[in-house]
Amino acid sequence: MSRAWDRTSTSTTLRTILTDLRIADVRVTPIAFADPPLLNNSGCHQPYALRSIIEVETEGGIVGLGESYGSKSILDGLAAVAAQCPGLRVTDINGLRRVAHSLRNAGDESSMRRIVGAIEVAMWDAHGKTTGQRVCDLLGGQVRETVPFAAYLFYKFAGHAGVGAEDAWGEVLSPEQLVDEARGMIEAHGFRAIKLKGGILEPDSEIAGLNALRAAFPDAPLRIDPNGGWSLHTTLGLLPRLEGLVEYLEDPTLGIDAMAAVQAKTDIPLATNMCIVAPEHLPPGLAQRAVRVILSDHHFWGGLAASRELARICAIWGIGLSMHSNSHLGISLAAMTHLAASTPNLTHDCDTHYPWQTDEVIEGGKLIFHNGALSVPEGPGLGVSLDRQALARLHHNYTNHGYGTRDDESEMQKHQPNWRFERPRY
Amino acid sequence: MSRAWDRTSTSTTLRTILTDLRIADVRVTPIAFADPPLLNNSGCHQPYALRSIIEVETEGGIVGLGESYGSKSILDGLAAVAAQCPGLRVTDINGLRRVAHSLRNAGDESSMRRIVGAIEVAMWDAHGKTTGQRVCDLLGGQVRETVPFAAYLFYKFAGHAGVGAEDAWGEVLSPEQLVDEARGMIEAHGFRAIKLKGGILEPDSEIAGLNALRAAFPDAPLRIDPNGGWSLHTTLGLLPRLEGLVEYLEDPTLGIDAMAAVQAKTDIPLATNMCIVAPEHLPPGLAQRAVRVILSDHHFWGGLAASRELARICAIWGIGLSMHSNSHLGISLAAMTHLAASTPNLTHDCDTHYPWQTDEVIEGGKLIFHNGALSVPEGPGLGVSLDRQALARLHHNYTNHGYGTRDDESEMQKHQPNWRFERPRY
Repeated sequence: MSRAWDRTSTSTTLRTILTDLRIADVRVTPIAFADPPLLNNSGCHQPYALRSIIEVETEGGIVGLGESYGSKSILDGLAAVAAQCPGLRVTDINGLRRVAHSLRNAGDESSMRRIVGAIEVAMWDAHGKTTGQRVCDLLGGQVRETVPFAAYLFYKFAGHAGVGAEDAWGEVLSPEQLVDEARGMIEAHGFRAIKLKGGILEPDSEIAGLNALRAAFPDAPLRIDPNGGWSLHTTLGLLPRLEGLVEYLEDPTLGIDAMAAVQAKTDIPLATNMCIVAPEHLPPGLAQRAVRVILSDHHFWGGLAASRELARICAIWGIGLSMHSNSHLGISLAAMTHLAASTPNLTHDCDTHYPWQTDEVIEGGKLIFHNGALSVPEGPGLGVSLDRQALARLHHNYTNHGYGTRDDESEMQKHQPNWRFERPRY
Repeated sequence: MSRAWDRTSTSTTLRTILTDLRIADVRVTPIAFADPPLLNNSGCHQPYALRSIIEVETEGGIVGLGESYGSKSILDGLAAVAAQCPGLRVTDINGLRRVAHSLRNAGDESSMRRIVGAIEVAMWDAHGKTTGQRVCDLLGGQVRETVPFAAYLFYKFAGHAGVGAEDAWGEVLSPEQLVDEARGMIEAHGFRAIKLKGGILEPDSEIAGLNALRAAFPDAPLRIDPNGGWSLHTTLGLLPRLEGLVEYLEDPTLGIDAMAAVQAKTDIPLATNMCIVAPEHLPPGLAQRAVRVILSDHHFWGGLAASRELARICAIWGIGLSMHSNSHLGISLAAMTHLAASTPNLTHDCDTHYPWQTDEVIEGGKLIFHNGALSVPEGPGLGVSLDRQALARLHHNYTNHGYGTRDDESEMQKHQPNWRFERPRY
């Protein structure tokens, strides 16, 4: 027989547990993990990537986890917002945004969205862990068994500057080396789609790389992301060579106006994580039909709820949806997987830097791709827990490596002293 | 000390409760409740308004409540979708949409959104009642202590056709009677803003009514909703007489094109619940700047989650947000209140027909406005429970009143035999 909510029997126990859904403490631990010398048009990845691990502890003693950027400006903002969170319910995303907004002088809107996103994921995890529900269920329900990711190829040096040894991937600067890299990554993880980080070499060389990938992997959807490294003129000139070759062309050039000018000239879908990266970019970007795919990223869009809203806007406006990635560990990957698993209109395989990372901060080690896809981690919340020894080790890296902000340009200059950041470069 | 989720002690109890979050049964009970002879440009309200009461019962025996439309076409679709819901989690809005979509041949997209919205609210209620959380918290957190509603004025006959007695409000067809109606409603409930359902009398008479309201209530924000009853030509001609008089002009004329043509000619914000009533209307409606206010309605937008998405779109595009209402009882009002309480960008007081209804289906009788506003009902979920005696009585009305579909035109013809539905009428 049905019964309404009451305050007796099991409900009493439940209430005891759930009245503890308020935040007691938010801890932020900066970490640094090993990162290979990957190239992009800002320069070269440093030996360590910076990241933050967020723990939202409830009054009931449950800890929810988040992972986000680790540069000093974000850490300072995170500390300020984290200090104001105790007392909020773990469901109170509006309250978190209000707190962040009230501290906005500690950073701009873009930073605040990053800070909200970092803490918000840990709130979802705490909510799920307290009530025994997976985050993908709390986000509206799982729509796919597994989440497909793409092989994310980088040009790279053989090793970091000043380090004698090559890393396991070696140098990747030629088409042949690029195909080897792709083969290694696909053999290890089973990825279907291939993304090339471009905007580094001469466009001719990068297109030669794409053609080599096409020859080696005839069925793989290909993407290239020059990160705004090409001028509008260069981009327009390259279009005939990219048509029929790539499933989408990500941020060839900078800004909504230039992207719209390119999109008007080609049937290749343009994708972006650079010209539409905030809610206020959506009205002009969609009105100008600047892109046909948006790369979502819960870390900079303001969390899982904000990313779900972005996905819905893409569905309504008929825009494709993929997912952007920075260097990250397993908490971020778990959050990306729960989000993607509950997003009906994910139209393209997600990006992830994860195969480039050897360190991990979650118990049980790295999450494992099968056929290029991840299952939603089992268990409530995000389904991952913190390896505190690993956290301590990676935090030790952070306090000892000696830099507080990512600087790919200076790192590049250790390899090529005359190199200077330019965008567009070509 | 912090502790991660584990499977011991209290968690075992919790898991026992929460593994029961799957839907065991969805029951739909059609009801009919007394409704006064209110006029709109479709005709006259019938003696009974039709409605459905939805009960989502979980495997744990918790019952969540919803309330929606009661016409036969919706009831048939509700029955079909309800039969497919057992086994879904109460959080699985994606799953509910999938079920509804797969049965779409039972109705069009618009009907399916209504059906999803009806069941989805009851799922949120069941989720909240099971986990001891209020729906406004599950929706992202309460942002206002109380939710303001507007006095919703109607022209009306003294009583229903064929009924000798006048109702408590009497005839309202003149400016003086309109001011009396407003005074009665504001004295009883404390509303601040005033909405006039228009498109019925000659526009001159309705504007005379607005001017009388302005004189009697100098500080009240005024609105008029002709429900598309005016032609584009008529609307443009009336604008000078409405400027400075109304806070917004709702659906004076039909369609995005005509609304955009009006909005381009006036600083009066146009509002709509007619030309933008579905996700696919948003891209053209926003691109054409057809309106400056959207009246949300979770009953036809597809539920609370879909309405939250609509609100976010309004925030991003800089569009005002208010709330639309049909004749409804307390379950709908509770849902509207939870939604509005968790919506940061509610820019205008919500509409509600609630003061016109004397029947009720929730325990404890009618919800009470204080100073024109409602507090969020206390307790988990929506904070309301079903009065099963009242439900039985109102269901008995339904089975005995003899009509299955709202028909304001035929009802109007009982008063004025030569009346015919026309839109636009003026």
